[in-house]
Amino acid sequence: MAIDFTLTAQQRDLQLTSRKFAKEVLNDAKAAELLSSPEERFLATKPTYEAMVASGYLRKCIPAPAGGDNAGLIDMAILAEEFYSVNASVTLTMLGTVLGLLPILLGGTPDLCKWLLGPFLKTSGAPLAGFCSSEPGGSANAGSPPPGEGVRTMARREGGNWIINGRKKWVSSATGWNREGADVLCVVCRTDPAAPPDAAISIIAVEGPVTGLVFERAIDTIGHRAHLVPQFGLQNVVTPGHNLLGQEGSGLALTAAAFTGTAALVGIFGVALMRAAFEFALHFARTEKRGGVHPIIEHQAVGYALADAKTTIEAARYLSWRACHALDAQSPAAEELAVEAKIFGSEAAVRVITDLMRVVGIDSYDHEAPFARLLQDALALPIFDGGNMGVRRRQLHMMFRRSDYDSLAACGAT
Amino acid sequence: MAIDFTLTAQQRDLQLTSRKFAKEVLNDAKAAELLSSPEERFLATKPTYEAMVASGYLRKCIPAPAGGDNAGLIDMAILAEEFYSVNASVTLTMLGTVLGLLPILLGGTPDLCKWLLGPFLKTSGAPLAGFCSSEPGGSANAGSPPPGEGVRTMARREGGNWIINGRKKWVSSATGWNREGADVLCVVCRTDPAAPPDAAISIIAVEGPVTGLVFERAIDTIGHRAHLVPQFGLQNVVTPGHNLLGQEGSGLALTAAAFTGTAALVGIFGVALMRAAFEFALHFARTEKRGGVHPIIEHQAVGYALADAKTTIEAARYLSWRACHALDAQSPAAEELAVEAKIFGSEAAVRVITDLMRVVGIDSYDHEAPFARLLQDALALPIFDGGNMGVRRRQLHMMFRRSDYDSLAACGAT
Amino acid sequence: MAIDFTLTAQQRDLQLTSRKFAKEVLNDAKAAELLSSPEERFLATKPTYEAMVASGYLRKCIPAPAGGDNAGLIDMAILAEEFYSVNASVTLTMLGTVLGLLPILLGGTPDLCKWLLGPFLKTSGAPLAGFCSSEPGGSANAGSPPPGEGVRTMARREGGNWIINGRKKWVSSATGWNREGADVLCVVCRTDPAAPPDAAISIIAVEGPVTGLVFERAIDTIGHRAHLVPQFGLQNVVTPGHNLLGQEGSGLALTAAAFTGTAALVGIFGVALMRAAFEFALHFARTEKRGGVHPIIEHQAVGYALADAKTTIEAARYLSWRACHALDAQSPAAEELAVEAKIFGSEAAVRVITDLMRVVGIDSYDHEAPFARLLQDALALPIFDGGNMGVRRRQLHMMFRRSDYDSLAACGAT
Amino acid sequence: MAIDFTLTAQQRDLQLTSRKFAKEVLNDAKAAELLSSPEERFLATKPTYEAMVASGYLRKCIPAPAGGDNAGLIDMAILAEEFYSVNASVTLTMLGTVLGLLPILLGGTPDLCKWLLGPFLKTSGAPLAGFCSSEPGGSANAGSPPPGEGVRTMARREGGNWIINGRKKWVSSATGWNREGADVLCVVCRTDPAAPPDAAISIIAVEGPVTGLVFERAIDTIGHRAHLVPQFGLQNVVTPGHNLLGQEGSGLALTAAAFTGTAALVGIFGVALMRAAFEFALHFARTEKRGGVHPIIEHQAVGYALADAKTTIEAARYLSWRACHALDAQSPAAEELAVEAKIFGSEAAVRVITDLMRVVGIDSYDHEAPFARLLQDALALPIFDGGNMGVRRRQLHMMFRRSDYDSLAACGAT
Repeated sequence: MAIDFTLTAQQRDLQLTSRKFAKEVLNDAKAAELLSSPEERFLATKPTYEAMVASGYLRKCIPAPAGGDNAGLIDMAILAEEFYSVNASVTLTMLGTVLGLLPILLGGTPDLCKWLLGPFLKTSGAPLAGFCSSEPGGSANAGSPPPGEGVRTMARREGGNWIINGRKKWVSSATGWNREGADVLCVVCRTDPAAPPDAAISIIAVEGPVTGLVFERAIDTIGHRAHLVPQFGLQNVVTPGHNLLGQEGSGLALTAAAFTGTAALVGIFGVALMRAAFEFALHFARTEKRGGVHPIIEHQAVGYALADAKTTIEAARYLSWRACHALDAQSPAAEELAVEAKIFGSEAAVRVITDLMRVVGIDSYDHEAPFARLLQDALALPIFDGGNMGVRRRQLHMMFRRSDYDSLAACGAT
Repeated sequence: MAIDFTLTAQQRDLQLTSRKFAKEVLNDAKAAELLSSPEERFLATKPTYEAMVASGYLRKCIPAPAGGDNAGLIDMAILAEEFYSVNASVTLTMLGTVLGLLPILLGGTPDLCKWLLGPFLKTSGAPLAGFCSSEPGGSANAGSPPPGEGVRTMARREGGNWIINGRKKWVSSATGWNREGADVLCVVCRTDPAAPPDAAISIIAVEGPVTGLVFERAIDTIGHRAHLVPQFGLQNVVTPGHNLLGQEGSGLALTAAAFTGTAALVGIFGVALMRAAFEFALHFARTEKRGGVHPIIEHQAVGYALADAKTTIEAARYLSWRACHALDAQSPAAEELAVEAKIFGSEAAVRVITDLMRVVGIDSYDHEAPFARLLQDALALPIFDGGNMGVRRRQLHMMFRRSDYDSLAACGAT
Repeated sequence: MAIDFTLTAQQRDLQLTSRKFAKEVLNDAKAAELLSSPEERFLATKPTYEAMVASGYLRKCIPAPAGGDNAGLIDMAILAEEFYSVNASVTLTMLGTVLGLLPILLGGTPDLCKWLLGPFLKTSGAPLAGFCSSEPGGSANAGSPPPGEGVRTMARREGGNWIINGRKKWVSSATGWNREGADVLCVVCRTDPAAPPDAAISIIAVEGPVTGLVFERAIDTIGHRAHLVPQFGLQNVVTPGHNLLGQEGSGLALTAAAFTGTAALVGIFGVALMRAAFEFALHFARTEKRGGVHPIIEHQAVGYALADAKTTIEAARYLSWRACHALDAQSPAAEELAVEAKIFGSEAAVRVITDLMRVVGIDSYDHEAPFARLLQDALALPIFDGGNMGVRRRQLHMMFRRSDYDSLAACGAT
Repeated sequence: MAIDFTLTAQQRDLQLTSRKFAKEVLNDAKAAELLSSPEERFLATKPTYEAMVASGYLRKCIPAPAGGDNAGLIDMAILAEEFYSVNASVTLTMLGTVLGLLPILLGGTPDLCKWLLGPFLKTSGAPLAGFCSSEPGGSANAGSPPPGEGVRTMARREGGNWIINGRKKWVSSATGWNREGADVLCVVCRTDPAAPPDAAISIIAVEGPVTGLVFERAIDTIGHRAHLVPQFGLQNVVTPGHNLLGQEGSGLALTAAAFTGTAALVGIFGVALMRAAFEFALHFARTEKRGGVHPIIEHQAVGYALADAKTTIEAARYLSWRACHALDAQSPAAEELAVEAKIFGSEAAVRVITDLMRVVGIDSYDHEAPFARLLQDALALPIFDGGNMGVRRRQLHMMFRRSDYDSLAACGAT
């Protein structure tokens, strides 16, 4: 154990095979983004998603102890960078499904895990899972005490079952391929209307097809054009009592744990999009003369702009790797680093891609160039999965206020 | 004459009436942006453009000495801010037409002006003009000496006519409503294949419909979705010899003069888009609670982010006004200030709009919110009309190298 | 009345004469900054300050209705830019004195004004005034209700007098040339221990020499090395009852008004320091080859960095002018614009000066170059006179929360 | 071998013992910075430097194969972060000495290494070495062909010796404790006046005391106040012919290699200074109320500003570690990463420290707070050791232009 940035042979293999798969399979699936309605676009990606599952990539994202092939978040980061740089929409469908499984992995009993994860461990089909946290009206203050609404979706026990009522929004793939619900939904609900927020909220698994799921609309998102984020209702949805994940009242803690796990990956999503923009801009600069005598890379301003972009890309990648490692190693600094990786990588992506458009000039404004797509995808990163302003910086603020906060933990032993 | 920021009664009236017109007329025309092909979208704006012409707004952009109602660039800035903040596409169609007339206004003989401007001075119809400068392959180095290609479009004299051959790209409205060409095109051409660039290039007016204009495609642009920027060829296009604008060989100088005139307005375009984003974000922050107890404007982070946005908006507006005034007053610092207004306002717009999305959070990622449109429009500003990296900063760089450069000219007498 | 950036003949004359005075008189006084103790440095500037007074510059900062020669804040801005770009320390001594007089100008009766302003209207001597607001322990929350301390200095009536006790810090020139107090101090005090903050605080004038003033130390500031900012106590300081400025309890409002008036000028201070740095860097770039073949201005990276700096300078100047005009015209947007001018100009100055150091390279790190001094002076701008983070952005935040806030007021009629 | 951020037990021990040494020994030595002349300040640090040597820290910076105790650049980074965050001046004296030895380590024969390194491997004395690269007039274009001056210092062979003439500037510790020269100087000289730059320049070792060294002045630097950077001449300095380091003509390559090695550490210097500023600001925010009811860390604006600072610190640290590892592992991406670590960490430091001053407010402007010192030290980082604008970004620009440049090398196998 020592500070080391060398990929293991397995990691290097993962990097190269996923790069190849991305190029050969994911690249073509971008055409789906040109269809006119969000649902058409999503459906058009189903064969690609099936190919990802068939090639074992979904299994590579499910931890080995739970029956999958995943060896840790660093491996996820390597995979995610390769896939996301080529096709953010489909990659998010897969990783959103992994996020949808996280409350089960974190809080489910062994039996429940075995039962619910089963379809996701196969290398066939197109299984989807959704983590139903956000709601119409916003969830930046999900933990608000009354009179704040906090979590508005209610679950009450009735016999051996939970009866769930409420509405959700912005949940990846939640309504599934056919508006009947994903294979599994983990629904954040208020299970005790009277308790304080940190005891009132729970997460309950619901298996699809979901009776009582009312599809409202597929959001016409700026980017991730072929990924589905619906708005929908849950009307008297019934699910068995034992589908409660973790302790009753542990919902906010479980939500935080799940989103911290993914935050480090959002940093890598930023790296992936910047990297794709950089590669295009570099190639453009080395080949285009724009009416002049030399390729424009000969201009110092072009070279320096590329230098600034590349510097940011590298900084974002290693901060994200550091966060992934901290999460895998359960370092005391893991939460801090995960949030920082998300903030840094996501905001850098927006800035760097817009900067690189200026290297290319007006031809970057044509949808034939990749910048529109990359930037539109990047715009989500600072605001999804816990917005940087309303949620992520607040998390850091809370840590700094704790009397036992150690600002040197991150550079310490683990 | 004194430093003063008070609108005259006429300017205040222009501001309020154009604000009203924008709200009542231009706002609805945004629906055109949802159609699927670029040409459909452009055509759908024709009635709105006709309404602008009918209400005299095109006349308000043509200088009084040439028969129009325009009193100066400050007035243009006031008008442009109101229109552009509501509908960038149609506003750009009108202002792109004004740009298309600028070489005539700057270089045309009185007779030619009278003849060519005629259709644009009426308050009926939907007259279009296009300034045909950019070409496929890029024109950031239009003034390059050989072996750089510079301007590739050629014009040769034959009898009393010019015969023009070449291809153009990114020219607002150039192919007109029906692919037959705008009412007038000012075409930048190489008129002397042997001369050095500052004597080889000329601008020649071509009246539509244009025989020999070959429509290639309407570019599917990231923003300005209902504005037309085509790519097209000119094949043996014939135009009378007296349609040469200015002296033969004066093309690069005339091009520079035209684009400097518009640069100050691009700064205002940035102000307009930021202002629209700010108004939405402010309203959102004052009304949305996102699950918490208070409207989110109560949060300091929200208020401070709005403060930074508003500060930038105000800085951009007065720099642009300063540039407009300098151009009107023919100040020695006019070119410098115009370029600076463009750089500042355009890059600020991209940054501020992406920052404001973070105030709103994930709901800003929905096409129901205005951010996608505003940002997509803003992305053009740093790269069109002379890209900031390839052209605009280079202009400043050239000035700084001149031995007679006076860095205090801008704060001096005029 | 119309939007106009033309200096009047008088303003142009003011600009050129103050530029000349700065070059001939203020420039040499910079040597004072090299002395070893803060008080020595301050005392060494006394002859220069006397020359400023003798040449009528202090009078040019006192409004005409009060007996001075000042025609408005725009004139102050023109003067301040010229002086501050050459010698921030002495200029701040003069403008700090003007700030010290503001509560009198704003709240004093005609008789009191006449009496207290007398020494400052002469063109002889070295009269000083200090606005005693900040206190040890910080005053960012001067308006805090209990249990916050807010203003800690107390004044109680005794007979016809006020008896003042407390401590102050960071007050320009407050202890005067000889530790006995400036000619006039305007002291922010709590006059009613029981009232809510907006009725408890008042400002009371104290004339020097001040019995009971206890000099504690002259702060060894990062910049403004030859300007005096002491920490001191007021122990049973007696001043006549009629020296109360404005109504009893109006202290916070009067403080806010005074600091708003100066905020627009802080924007210009930023312009002044950036301008000095730009001029040095431009000259360096045009003359130095650093071992290469051409002056380094031939490098695109150098030219572009200068372009970015100059663009920011111009943006800051016109925002500050706009704010000055709004204050003079009592525009409804005046407070907002003044705060924005301060935030923008002050933070820009720090950034631009550090950026320009990179143009010059390592030789900028030598105290023989002006960058250390300019940056050290600039560092104060975001944090003095109401820190941008604790006070200024909070002011904007408060405005945005008001239901009658009009975001378009600044671009409207006045 | 795998991606890992866990310190080995030895590294953790190094971190903690050097943290303790910094606190106990280096901290007090900061008082030296208050003395009035540069040389006095430098001399006052001699006992501290001797303590560093005596405690084996200089040995810890010399590679094991050469007789020292250094296990790699990562260890250097751990040590440097601890020391530099407490006392940049003395730490730079030690690391500048290591830089001064690098040409010997990289290019010296075993015998020469043994001879010249001897004094530096002892744990007694205060040995100094200087890498004499920069010259008056600037060396950003050291590799310029004529008529650029490039390297101006000349060395000619005479008998078995080199005779060196020229002037140098900005060389850490070069003139030694007594103006007679450091124990070893590695002098970059032109050894062939006629050859092209990549064959004309060599590095020659000169042992102190140096006859012919003419002390000109100790530069009064903005920061690193107790570190010596002199300007001096070399007049007919004689050194044995076998003191040539590497091949004749290899000087530019050797210089590049030495500076690349240190660039990654400059990134860590930035981390160290930011970290010290962060710790002060965090403590201030947790304890100061500034007149309000709660410690200011309760304000969201304060917490968010701290969050942004901390995010940048973490990003800079892992990019620097990545670069150190790449250099140790001789990764193909090593040079790129080292330059990027320098650019990112150095520029971030300047920005973050100025941002953190705004958290503290006006009390940060007092020399009693650490910000002045930290910022003044930080200002050197972007411009020393190869200025970021003139040298470092140009290095990246050159790489990007190479046809075999692989933008994914950095995230690959080593």
